[in-house]
Amino acid sequence: MGNILSGKEVAEALKQKLKAEADELREKGVVPTLSIIIVGDRADSAAYIKGAVKRCGEIGIECSVTELPQDLSQNEFLEVIHRQNADEKIHGIMIMRPLPSQISENVVKYEISPAKDVDCFSPVNVSKVMSGEEGGFAPCTPSAVMEILHHYGIDPKGKKAVIVGRSMVVGRPLAMMLLKENATITVCHTRTANLAEETRRADILIAAAGKARMIKKDMVREGTCVIDVGINFDENGKMCGDVDFDEVSSAAGMITPVPGGVGAVTSTVLAKHVIQACKRG
Amino acid sequence: MGNILSGKEVAEALKQKLKAEADELREKGVVPTLSIIIVGDRADSAAYIKGAVKRCGEIGIECSVTELPQDLSQNEFLEVIHRQNADEKIHGIMIMRPLPSQISENVVKYEISPAKDVDCFSPVNVSKVMSGEEGGFAPCTPSAVMEILHHYGIDPKGKKAVIVGRSMVVGRPLAMMLLKENATITVCHTRTANLAEETRRADILIAAAGKARMIKKDMVREGTCVIDVGINFDENGKMCGDVDFDEVSSAAGMITPVPGGVGAVTSTVLAKHVIQACKRG
Repeated sequence: MGNILSGKEVAEALKQKLKAEADELREKGVVPTLSIIIVGDRADSAAYIKGAVKRCGEIGIECSVTELPQDLSQNEFLEVIHRQNADEKIHGIMIMRPLPSQISENVVKYEISPAKDVDCFSPVNVSKVMSGEEGGFAPCTPSAVMEILHHYGIDPKGKKAVIVGRSMVVGRPLAMMLLKENATITVCHTRTANLAEETRRADILIAAAGKARMIKKDMVREGTCVIDVGINFDENGKMCGDVDFDEVSSAAGMITPVPGGVGAVTSTVLAKHVIQACKRG
Repeated sequence: MGNILSGKEVAEALKQKLKAEADELREKGVVPTLSIIIVGDRADSAAYIKGAVKRCGEIGIECSVTELPQDLSQNEFLEVIHRQNADEKIHGIMIMRPLPSQISENVVKYEISPAKDVDCFSPVNVSKVMSGEEGGFAPCTPSAVMEILHHYGIDPKGKKAVIVGRSMVVGRPLAMMLLKENATITVCHTRTANLAEETRRADILIAAAGKARMIKKDMVREGTCVIDVGINFDENGKMCGDVDFDEVSSAAGMITPVPGGVGAVTSTVLAKHVIQACKRG
């Protein structure tokens, strides 16, 4: 079996570092603060928020959760954003998506302050991820992948990184982030002609397609570093990744499990972004 | 020898289409207008501007060239931008780069109106290229590559597109544009471990590294479609691409020459963007 890349271990190490930084800020009288905005009731969002609030609390970040009614108008929503943009006590703002249909994400994304946009909703931050410019915020999930690579000393430079999936929350930004660190990147997707041929070439294989256990053993070359971004539930309701862990783990050189892999790091990356926003403040 | 993909032919066909659209706009009393802004003297910029003005003139687009002194302050420059953003008679604005050192591109790019930004300087347009969102402007050079592919009926869907070069003016945006059209994309660069191994896998090979004749015959699989974005001058002062055309053209299935390839299309794409901006106006 390949070496397990433990997201829990990465998150724990990062947490200790952030805790020290939060303590330092608090000693100066600054309380790093994250605002989470949610419109309507969504069970998946509620679970995510619970995890984020817990993690932020452990680190010393204050969280304020703004719960807004499902039928809120776009203008009322924008007023909340503008108020929080202007509020000096709030350093990071996270808007839970999807938003209800009367509120257009294509309008809202231009209104959130890029300096407080800790999960890369603003086009300003998207543009910085693409150009590799410092001082922005990448989305939390691909950032969590990079944290895992860095923690375990896996340098993407000169390596073939093959990414399965091209979403704006994982595949595309991660491709740009790996490119910045000098990987040769390949992005595959549902239209890729021979997926197994592509994935077998990978030194670092990122599964971010959102399809339960789609990466099988014959798609992975011996010794590859496999990072599984998927969070799916199988027919028995059991959480699983995009990688068929039981099969693939014997071939992979290194592999992240699900749960306990990438997903275990994202809320700590969110906290990292809040601390960064607070320091840049 | 492979089939020549003639940039001139593509530009000519596009020109006729745009001319009809410009005529239609003029009949409605709207004169599509491009403003080109240049700070200081630069021979390369002057040559580019000359070509763009000529091409726009043939199509029926009015060009106004604003020549500003080399020692202009950033604030004075921003005043010019703001005035032109507000000027309803100007539909497109093209700022020649690089700018002198006292003017920060990282400041200016946020100030140009995204709706008039016909060469993708604004982060809003960069973000749209990355997400594949319609209604923005991609940079002219990668757009010219896509025009050539479309003109010759080369559908990137399911094909392996290998891009050599990762600049923000060609490599990265082109990767995103090919991804949007369902190619499996690979981006190579100076740190790529085995470049020839990557380029030989390409169905569509894009050379955009800025290195004279670096793509040799042994790097190209028989039948590949080769698009050469390079504009270099060899030791004899002769213009050449990133592809060693004399060697590679016998292997390639299709190939763009230099000159007369991608470079012959860019100014017509610029005109296309001005017409689009004018229509969206």
